[in-house]
Amino acid sequence: MFDFLQRLSPRLHRQIEFLLTLDCLKNVERRTWVTGQDRRENSAEHSWHVAVAALVLSEYASSAEINLEKVIQMLLLHDIVEIEAGDTFLYDEHSNQDKKSREQEAASRLFSLLPEDQAAAFRSLWEEFETRQTPEAKFAAAVDRILPILMNFARKGQLWQEHGVKAGLVRSRNRHIEEGSKTLWDVVNTVIDEAIARGFLEPGETEPTA
Amino acid sequence: MFDFLQRLSPRLHRQIEFLLTLDCLKNVERRTWVTGQDRRENSAEHSWHVAVAALVLSEYASSAEINLEKVIQMLLLHDIVEIEAGDTFLYDEHSNQDKKSREQEAASRLFSLLPEDQAAAFRSLWEEFETRQTPEAKFAAAVDRILPILMNFARKGQLWQEHGVKAGLVRSRNRHIEEGSKTLWDVVNTVIDEAIARGFLEPGETEPTA
Repeated sequence: MFDFLQRLSPRLHRQIEFLLTLDCLKNVERRTWVTGQDRRENSAEHSWHVAVAALVLSEYASSAEINLEKVIQMLLLHDIVEIEAGDTFLYDEHSNQDKKSREQEAASRLFSLLPEDQAAAFRSLWEEFETRQTPEAKFAAAVDRILPILMNFARKGQLWQEHGVKAGLVRSRNRHIEEGSKTLWDVVNTVIDEAIARGFLEPGETEPTA
Repeated sequence: MFDFLQRLSPRLHRQIEFLLTLDCLKNVERRTWVTGQDRRENSAEHSWHVAVAALVLSEYASSAEINLEKVIQMLLLHDIVEIEAGDTFLYDEHSNQDKKSREQEAASRLFSLLPEDQAAAFRSLWEEFETRQTPEAKFAAAVDRILPILMNFARKGQLWQEHGVKAGLVRSRNRHIEEGSKTLWDVVNTVIDEAIARGFLEPGETEPTA
């Protein structure tokens, strides 16, 4: 579409084609319902929301010397592979089995649109988020997980009910929040307890589906 | 909605209510069409897109010592006042007259949801973006403006045609891109010239509407 920009700068041309390709993340639907609307959120607006949440909640990171700039950059990029691989629902056992390989292939294709130095830098940030070993990645993952739980509570547990998800599964699939932030893990447990008390979420364990 | 979190921490309770209020930015419609979809983008996904664009294009900032972290934080927050004030179309003379006062009131209400220290820090970032005096604000504004132009070109100028906007107005309303990045201003002018050549955009000046 922007081939005529190659004359101006081949590097800039690649960067702009990458940015326009990213526009497609606005078409990737997640499961979480948007507050006050009869639609589910998409991965682009989710990425914005978690980046702002990292900014607001950074004081609760388990590691005091966290690099917030890196956390936010990770969160801005963490879902772009879904442009090719689609969103994988956290509580869907089946789709989660080949999630890694699908996303690795998507990452190779997408990041290669960029000039080599940026492709390498962004891919490295994305891999760091995925492997969740550094304080930044652990905190980013915690923030990525807390928002859907809060939003789902605000919708009176609609998503949990739609998929027959019970409290035990919400706790076990989100347990790693504790690695990134003990405080946010306390929040999640308080929200889950309140959701059970209000009848938004069933206690106990989810039965496996056939 | 989350009053029960006050027992855990009044500060965290305020931060979480703020974050859930921000969810409403996903409901604010802009004019720009999303690539490959029959819908316009919303301000939340736009905010994500411009934050990533700042990350990808930071090397083109006019000032070499730009603080990219600050630029990205500004862009994450720059549109949240639209939750109360709505999106104001760049080429709408009438709505732009009271834009400032509407947005100032919205900022007072929204930021006051946060603990005082964060309310002051975020408000200050937002004011810095609005007044466009620092190198960070100038670059952030340039990135905020270039994406809609590129996206509109990719839609063969649909938005310009819908509103009878001609090339002269696109150049004059976006001229401040040059303050933030001479390179990105070159890109914009190249794109405008190409849009005229392909018949996506009419040359000349826009006639004022009654």
